[in-house]
Amino acid sequence: MSSGAGRLRYSASISLDGFVAGPDQSREHPLGVGGEQLHVWVRELAVWRREHGEDGGVENASSGVYTRGGEGIGAVIMGRNMFGGGPGPWPDPPWNGWWGDEPPFHLPVFVLTHHERPPLELRGTTFTFVTGGAGEALALAREAAAGKDVALAGGAGVARQYLGAGLVDELQLHVVPVLLGDGVRLFDGGLAVALEQVEAVEAPGVTHLTYRF
Amino acid sequence: MSSGAGRLRYSASISLDGFVAGPDQSREHPLGVGGEQLHVWVRELAVWRREHGEDGGVENASSGVYTRGGEGIGAVIMGRNMFGGGPGPWPDPPWNGWWGDEPPFHLPVFVLTHHERPPLELRGTTFTFVTGGAGEALALAREAAAGKDVALAGGAGVARQYLGAGLVDELQLHVVPVLLGDGVRLFDGGLAVALEQVEAVEAPGVTHLTYRF
Repeated sequence: MSSGAGRLRYSASISLDGFVAGPDQSREHPLGVGGEQLHVWVRELAVWRREHGEDGGVENASSGVYTRGGEGIGAVIMGRNMFGGGPGPWPDPPWNGWWGDEPPFHLPVFVLTHHERPPLELRGTTFTFVTGGAGEALALAREAAAGKDVALAGGAGVARQYLGAGLVDELQLHVVPVLLGDGVRLFDGGLAVALEQVEAVEAPGVTHLTYRF
Repeated sequence: MSSGAGRLRYSASISLDGFVAGPDQSREHPLGVGGEQLHVWVRELAVWRREHGEDGGVENASSGVYTRGGEGIGAVIMGRNMFGGGPGPWPDPPWNGWWGDEPPFHLPVFVLTHHERPPLELRGTTFTFVTGGAGEALALAREAAAGKDVALAGGAGVARQYLGAGLVDELQLHVVPVLLGDGVRLFDGGLAVALEQVEAVEAPGVTHLTYRF
């Protein structure tokens, strides 16, 4: 990590058996079949619902974890699969993300893709499409973040690239008490390293574990 | 679970990437290469060291978790690999376990194996070798436990048999902040079920997560 640059933080909801998405991801099932169970804890939070234009919701031990997770973030990196629109060349008319006219990021977002595309400006969020690989996306995101941290938003393939390259500084796992039995593993083997345990927070239907590399 | 019978409780130290043992298990590396990192938290506890005839050690948030984990247990089930001595027919002279003349169990232990062998009585612990499968071992252990709980001691293959058959009542994972990158996975896919989150306890170098099925 270069001097003055923000940390790269990765956060994911994960099943007890290590899956960050269910099997058979598709436009109808962006989180894979059964994968929506991993996000129940966050979708029922009042703070998440406010950010996503929805009423109601609860406040519990997860609220603070969620709020702190968004603090100090200056840019976001995500993979093409998380941005969506299927693999391969961009369709015409182009896919503009899952989030409508006003995505919830309100930050510069860098999308790793093999297919060039001009930046997409929506209300409050500009998506920049990066074809030069994980290192280039991180350099661009760090520049845009101007000293703040960079959030690695997923999916698992992109997270594994950064984890495997030793580029992630902080890892937060939201461990959900469910066995999915199949799907997309975050840790597919290969990377052997000891981490520093920072914090564990028990909350209704989820435990939040934070580590530093 | 039949009326009046104790619960079946499984407890395991597990890496952040889901391994309960490292790769290349052998007589020299019963926990697999690197697997000893998963057990540092317990081996440094004063309560564990006393039970294993060693001095010193620390007391911390793990001490209570460890002590409560042993309470109310009336019998133990383990697999042939955990008992040790390699696969296949019993050698001559027979392998009598990793634990010397006085194993730390002080309870009836039932060893699942494909190879018949008369019971082995050591100081305070009798090992009974069961060739009739997981169901028979559980029935014998429940009878021996006389209403107390049965501890499923591992290894992963045996644990998966009982988990897959829906026979485990309580699951406790001691999550250690290390990525092993390779080894023996506890959850190898297949089983899809929601659990009840009971407790999360943060301790030095480990987080203890308890679930009920």
